[in-house]
Amino acid sequence: MSKKKRVVIALGGNALGNTLPEQMKAVKITAKAIVDLIEEGCEVVVAHGNGPQVGMVNNAMIALTHEDPQQPNTPLSVCVAMSQAYIGYDLQNALREEMLNRGIDNIPVATMITQVRVDPEDPAFKNPSKPIGKFVSQEQAKRMEENFHYIMKEDSGRGYRRVVASPKPVEIIEIGTIRNMVESGDLVIACGGGGIPVVRQGNHLKGASAVIDKDFASCLMAKELDADFLIILTAVEQVALNFGKPDETWLSDVSVEEAEKYIDQGHFAPGSMLPKVQAAVDFASSKPGRTALITLLEKSRDAVQGKTGTMFHL
Amino acid sequence: MSKKKRVVIALGGNALGNTLPEQMKAVKITAKAIVDLIEEGCEVVVAHGNGPQVGMVNNAMIALTHEDPQQPNTPLSVCVAMSQAYIGYDLQNALREEMLNRGIDNIPVATMITQVRVDPEDPAFKNPSKPIGKFVSQEQAKRMEENFHYIMKEDSGRGYRRVVASPKPVEIIEIGTIRNMVESGDLVIACGGGGIPVVRQGNHLKGASAVIDKDFASCLMAKELDADFLIILTAVEQVALNFGKPDETWLSDVSVEEAEKYIDQGHFAPGSMLPKVQAAVDFASSKPGRTALITLLEKSRDAVQGKTGTMFHL
Repeated sequence: MSKKKRVVIALGGNALGNTLPEQMKAVKITAKAIVDLIEEGCEVVVAHGNGPQVGMVNNAMIALTHEDPQQPNTPLSVCVAMSQAYIGYDLQNALREEMLNRGIDNIPVATMITQVRVDPEDPAFKNPSKPIGKFVSQEQAKRMEENFHYIMKEDSGRGYRRVVASPKPVEIIEIGTIRNMVESGDLVIACGGGGIPVVRQGNHLKGASAVIDKDFASCLMAKELDADFLIILTAVEQVALNFGKPDETWLSDVSVEEAEKYIDQGHFAPGSMLPKVQAAVDFASSKPGRTALITLLEKSRDAVQGKTGTMFHL
Repeated sequence: MSKKKRVVIALGGNALGNTLPEQMKAVKITAKAIVDLIEEGCEVVVAHGNGPQVGMVNNAMIALTHEDPQQPNTPLSVCVAMSQAYIGYDLQNALREEMLNRGIDNIPVATMITQVRVDPEDPAFKNPSKPIGKFVSQEQAKRMEENFHYIMKEDSGRGYRRVVASPKPVEIIEIGTIRNMVESGDLVIACGGGGIPVVRQGNHLKGASAVIDKDFASCLMAKELDADFLIILTAVEQVALNFGKPDETWLSDVSVEEAEKYIDQGHFAPGSMLPKVQAAVDFASSKPGRTALITLLEKSRDAVQGKTGTMFHL
């Protein structure tokens, strides 16, 4: 029996929709692509983003403070936890159902509430720049700064949004449990939204007002689980050089060395393709034989077979 | 080496507080009592209620629909899922911290999103009677009936509240994973709020507008995990006959047969002590050697040692 390939797949939060009905449709499509990988013989661990979802939960908890003065505002870390359950519950159901539809009845699916430790000295805390939640007026922004001590920034002429730090993940607190579950043959959903950000204060873990990039968290999880593949999903089938320009060139196969050169040349947009390529390079360079793939959800199986996507390797 | 005693402990949602600051205090006290059991040599699995918390999440999601007309209302099952993360994240941290403070660093703590299947033919669905969420006016109640198809009932002259069904738990969907985690030595938090209620529709699990009694769900989990003890926490140290009357008698040790007689005699209040005693009897009668305990949180260790609480056995 050949050893199963272990795959960590990082789903985008945007691909999961902005409302629950949208999410319930989206997870069906997602489940098909993931079960394709399982049928291909992969052992899959699912991580996902939570941009729209944690914004929604955060907005709901703020709306509650308007209606119920007894309720203090809910910290972002708790909203991230809640978004893990909001997404995980739907996603695990869709995965279970898709497997049963294909006659696979021996793989339990489970969602783990996951905390990810960040460094309080991470430079990201000095320059919060990740926008979350909805756009508000200047007046509302001022009130949120006063009431909740949020940092609000004007965003692309569309109004004000809260910005938070996006520090690098240092440690996945529940990694031992996640590893055991994967070794037992479970299909695990973990590190949702990049994980609940926490900082260490002695024996205490304190929630941080931050969001962790899910591609970086997925990369850390893939390394810790000694995965063979890290699949980072995005809106294009392959990564391009000179994206959107006349000399646009799609990349099929890139060495870590080449990728680092392209990063230095500024080929990848910060906040968009750049962190994905950085996470891919980080994983591929961590050990010989580890492969990172960037591609479309529906091309995941083809990418693992080497037919498409952009492959990063040592 | 003597085999560790396996204990499922059912915490009350009310004991966890009505707001996040209250919860953060409550989980510290809870963690001390649970780590006392671990120091006693027990292998602990934690289940908990979510009455105030799922009410709060439900209220927040309704408040969001008032502020953002794009957001449809969120089903109760999804609110239960979110409450599992809202409570589990805090509780697992408090447990981890309390163990580290006592030098226990080899027991991982993990929260599992747990679904519990119920029977759509359960008579509870014909007579929804479990109140959840806040009191509202008659006018507001009418609007909620129209907008969300809620069933609203007048409650004790204090206003109207939503009522939902409280069906019996039939199957814990994630029990295999929970069992593996427990066998690996993890301290697992599962079946939060009695579990996310789902009904089977072919291969699909559909969320139900219901809440499952956490004592019944804990009893099912304790049976499935072949636990030695089921500890059901309540606000009194022992169960009483003729509670609050001149001939009040505290019970230390009750056989299943005696307990069933007391139930028939109407000694225990429905919606309060009755379901706890029923769950205790169910567990104790399921197999010789299984013991159910009803007591106070802070007396859990003493109860396992046979010093206090009410003990139910075959």
